[in-house]
Amino acid sequence: MLDQFKVAKQDEVRIPATALRKTVQSLFEHVGVPPADAETGANVLVTTDLRGIDSHGVSNMLRNYLTWFQSGRLNPTPAVQILRERPATASMDGDAGLGIIQGPAAMELAIQKARTVGVGAVSMRNSGHLGAAGHMAMLAAEQNMIGVCLSAAGPRVLPTFGAEPRLGTNPIAYAAPTRGVPVLLFDVATTVIAENKLRLAHRLGSTLQPNWVADTEGSPISEEIPAPAPGEYQLLPLGGTREHGSHKGYGLGLMAELLSTMLSGGVPCMLDPTQHWKHHFVAYDIEAFTDLDEYFDRMDAMLGVLRATRPAPGHERVIYPGVLDHETYRERSVQGIPLHPEVIEWFNQTTSSFGLPPLETVQVPAESDD
Amino acid sequence: MLDQFKVAKQDEVRIPATALRKTVQSLFEHVGVPPADAETGANVLVTTDLRGIDSHGVSNMLRNYLTWFQSGRLNPTPAVQILRERPATASMDGDAGLGIIQGPAAMELAIQKARTVGVGAVSMRNSGHLGAAGHMAMLAAEQNMIGVCLSAAGPRVLPTFGAEPRLGTNPIAYAAPTRGVPVLLFDVATTVIAENKLRLAHRLGSTLQPNWVADTEGSPISEEIPAPAPGEYQLLPLGGTREHGSHKGYGLGLMAELLSTMLSGGVPCMLDPTQHWKHHFVAYDIEAFTDLDEYFDRMDAMLGVLRATRPAPGHERVIYPGVLDHETYRERSVQGIPLHPEVIEWFNQTTSSFGLPPLETVQVPAESDD
Repeated sequence: MLDQFKVAKQDEVRIPATALRKTVQSLFEHVGVPPADAETGANVLVTTDLRGIDSHGVSNMLRNYLTWFQSGRLNPTPAVQILRERPATASMDGDAGLGIIQGPAAMELAIQKARTVGVGAVSMRNSGHLGAAGHMAMLAAEQNMIGVCLSAAGPRVLPTFGAEPRLGTNPIAYAAPTRGVPVLLFDVATTVIAENKLRLAHRLGSTLQPNWVADTEGSPISEEIPAPAPGEYQLLPLGGTREHGSHKGYGLGLMAELLSTMLSGGVPCMLDPTQHWKHHFVAYDIEAFTDLDEYFDRMDAMLGVLRATRPAPGHERVIYPGVLDHETYRERSVQGIPLHPEVIEWFNQTTSSFGLPPLETVQVPAESDD
Repeated sequence: MLDQFKVAKQDEVRIPATALRKTVQSLFEHVGVPPADAETGANVLVTTDLRGIDSHGVSNMLRNYLTWFQSGRLNPTPAVQILRERPATASMDGDAGLGIIQGPAAMELAIQKARTVGVGAVSMRNSGHLGAAGHMAMLAAEQNMIGVCLSAAGPRVLPTFGAEPRLGTNPIAYAAPTRGVPVLLFDVATTVIAENKLRLAHRLGSTLQPNWVADTEGSPISEEIPAPAPGEYQLLPLGGTREHGSHKGYGLGLMAELLSTMLSGGVPCMLDPTQHWKHHFVAYDIEAFTDLDEYFDRMDAMLGVLRATRPAPGHERVIYPGVLDHETYRERSVQGIPLHPEVIEWFNQTTSSFGLPPLETVQVPAESDD
């Protein structure tokens, strides 16, 4: 993650993962989510924070999740339905449940199908925000499969040359197991910048680079600007401008709409903005395709070559997707998860108003913070 | 396609598709490709030209294909082998055949599997250049399926922050059927710019935009420059710079390597540059997931809303991937395929040296050329 999206060192409060997980689970339970589901949701969020994906952890979306459960926009006890099923595929209706809770089960179904017939693909409509799509892909990687996950919502993102938003920030994620090096884990919004990161930048008072966003009329803003508040900008697809490939980001976002929404019989948000989220999960059983040992040999060798790439002038090292997640996971597992004081304050207010015990904010020794 | 990649109107010679197909087939046959395969290859190339994807039609790669067949780098009569197979999956070895000829059969296998179990996924190693990956995806769309196709080769593209190329321009393509509007067809290199387009720009004497390519040390070139010759630049992943998401383009390119190379038991070109191309083909049977009529209703409605998007200032219209291909296909089916005189000259030299009849260059009336 770029520096402008990080909580400043002097501001951060470190919270142990176990304490955070406990509090998040209790918050979910308080709004009516059954304990096992609340545990799943808390685990997805806190694991995401441990991996350093602060934009999709507890800081940005948790307050929305709770509000939506309370307002009835999300259903804490959904009756998930399988609409159609074949040996390799299923389409599901999430009954307005929360994606971070429903995603793991949908990916597990794809994994089971992959184990039987080689690959499994599951599309789900009428679900809620998925959190980090990469988390779902990782569930497949943990079972020696390649996981792919896409999600669609919106409409928040401009199509190339457009002045009206049509697509969501529609992420594409994949994960693949390794033998002795950090797991290959890729998870990106199909925009120049993830919307959650823009919110984070606004909260942190950071600036935005040229062509990261468009003005409200749809023209890319070609100078550096202070991060505007939501509503004062439009999101651009990856590439930013047509000359730099925004049609590629646009088409990749549309791919998520195709596989998540169209295959599950959902209605795209560009046709009806009140529609819920849709997701797509794929698991590939590696052994259906090739020898697992040989796969591991080559994966580790390939990822080693990527890391051994000579850096361009001004850069220290070349990494691959998943290396930073791995390093951050190890550091935060020991040192705790850094949260902004405003987020801590929100936790305290919320647990207090719910009549729940406060978040345990055990401070981590300062010298470990270099 | 951006203007700088188009053959200038005053230079172009229009060739009817049937004449071009006939000559290309005869060239393939002359270097030892069996007639049915030569026909397949000619059809892929000429259809690609009809769709307006000049960078992947007859102009850029055909001369390489012929050279490689003659030099033994490609095998005109490969014994394609299925390595592993499950109801939904297969891995294959292409025996050094040409991808544009082998792709249609591999996608057909994926389609057959999808018809039986809902989705089919096929990975192929040891093949040749795939041409337009979108062509393979379209084969699924023509059978009321969603097609996805990726391909990996290289190493030509820098990883983010790297000074040494590691990945190919690794395309990602998909296609999805529609009822009454142009088919959704997406096919892009995971670089800022496709390498074939850079070659075309060099041949046409066009300029390159800032951050389209890096210098030979790996630093993105931040000013506009005349298109350099191959070898005088390095390719950047989609996004261009890290601040604009080059790590996303890098990870998407790596996805092609994962699904094409790792699943087929192939060796990535970054480990061994003499390795051949690898591909990945997926077909989703729409009816396994949802009602086909409902799907068509929503697809056409969604694509209609995308086209009805109010354009940003300075732009005439908003389209979706596949609209230009459709429009160009219709125009070129009637008016012929525009080729650069240098390409015509190459055809004439080649047919002459092979002892084959020359390409029929029937001129199209000038007034149709507005």
